[in-house]
Amino acid sequence: MSTSIRKVSFIGSGNVATHLAKALHKRGVEIGQIFSQQCDNSEVLAWQSNAKYICDLEELNTEVDLLIFAIKDEAIRQVAQFVYEKNPTVKVVHTSGSVSLEVFNGFENSGIFYPLQSFSKSKKIDIQEVPILITANNPVFKADLMGFARLISDRVYEYTDEQRKHLHVAAVFVNNFSNHLFAIAQEYCNRHQLEFEMLLPLIRETIHKIDTLPPKDAQTGPAKRNDKEIIEKHIALLQAEDPQLAVVYRTLSDSIMKMYFPADQ
Amino acid sequence: MSTSIRKVSFIGSGNVATHLAKALHKRGVEIGQIFSQQCDNSEVLAWQSNAKYICDLEELNTEVDLLIFAIKDEAIRQVAQFVYEKNPTVKVVHTSGSVSLEVFNGFENSGIFYPLQSFSKSKKIDIQEVPILITANNPVFKADLMGFARLISDRVYEYTDEQRKHLHVAAVFVNNFSNHLFAIAQEYCNRHQLEFEMLLPLIRETIHKIDTLPPKDAQTGPAKRNDKEIIEKHIALLQAEDPQLAVVYRTLSDSIMKMYFPADQ
Repeated sequence: MSTSIRKVSFIGSGNVATHLAKALHKRGVEIGQIFSQQCDNSEVLAWQSNAKYICDLEELNTEVDLLIFAIKDEAIRQVAQFVYEKNPTVKVVHTSGSVSLEVFNGFENSGIFYPLQSFSKSKKIDIQEVPILITANNPVFKADLMGFARLISDRVYEYTDEQRKHLHVAAVFVNNFSNHLFAIAQEYCNRHQLEFEMLLPLIRETIHKIDTLPPKDAQTGPAKRNDKEIIEKHIALLQAEDPQLAVVYRTLSDSIMKMYFPADQ
Repeated sequence: MSTSIRKVSFIGSGNVATHLAKALHKRGVEIGQIFSQQCDNSEVLAWQSNAKYICDLEELNTEVDLLIFAIKDEAIRQVAQFVYEKNPTVKVVHTSGSVSLEVFNGFENSGIFYPLQSFSKSKKIDIQEVPILITANNPVFKADLMGFARLISDRVYEYTDEQRKHLHVAAVFVNNFSNHLFAIAQEYCNRHQLEFEMLLPLIRETIHKIDTLPPKDAQTGPAKRNDKEIIEKHIALLQAEDPQLAVVYRTLSDSIMKMYFPADQ
């Protein structure tokens, strides 16, 4: 192993912690403790990764090679302070795309271990394929972290704080927002007694296309054709049943027209 | 064959005409003429499907079993009038998701033959998997059209005008709009010297997920967590470089929060 990290503990037991802890455990990394305020969560995960679960942060043992913060962004700073007071020399990383390394100011070795993937607990993922973006406050720790990340992924990259934040924004667009469009369509189909499953071949093709065509060249549809007649028809249809949907439709159509017909808009 | 339609001509030579003409030709349907104002387009397609190309509508021969209008929505009415004056008994269909059957008023046999897929000329598609939605103005012609559609697709359905329009709206959301989100991310990555390809595993997973989880249950991300701090950070980042992008981000985040936290909004 080209890493000195052999024993880690997790703060958090959500989707990211679950996938990472299981994958690391499988690759022989010892999982010490898993902390979660929701005891149930950490108990299940601890059992799956042969770790101990704790529901009280006071019980946290910082004698590990790495503490992995896999918690909500807004909670990181406070827990980091708590850990720092306990042991300022423990190595720490968080798994957030949007929180700066600065949140760990003071720690000797701090970093970010950001898996660029959308995890759901109930859905298996081949973590070997998931890009892991590494940031660290010093070169030695960075090399150690990259070796550690390579235990579970073939795609480990060094990213600056700023690059990672930009990539996270882009990830929100391609993952969270596109999934929401599918959810909108699902609700819309239900409302009109249409089968959402009819749309699956179309959704699959949308994705397959970008393996061979850049998405900017693959664009089709009314807005791409600058077909304002259909756009207004669709908006009228949506306006009558759900004005919020009409806003989404108009915003995205405007954005498409601005991309392809900038002079017109 | 459970259809009487053995010889067809195309009005239009774009993406839809190209995929349909080739598939029909392959299944033994005779393609008579292919009309396009852009002669180059129809010549290529005519060669590929062993048909004659014409660039002047006056040369249209209506002695075929079916005339397929695969042209822009706004052009259908005018060309339909022209054809009606020439031969009111020719059977006609168009391939649009949003134009009503009423556009063919007067024709004895008129219908809609809507393939629910996004076609790009340069991208092959397994048309056998593409749902084809059939509407017709009388039951005999409808049965004939459905048999005809089954020559090239295993998924042929009868849809009313209204159902088809609703499904088309949903298709715009899942296909055109999600592709646009990918295009936005592509441009954004380029601007920040990041590789768009990094996002491909995430995009693929977004799609694979909905095979096992309904999209409404698969939603993740800042808006789904009601994490207004990150949302505002991202919007500030976008606002500085491209205010239109910030509008898209806010509209979609609002829409997600409205779906999952309706009481808060």
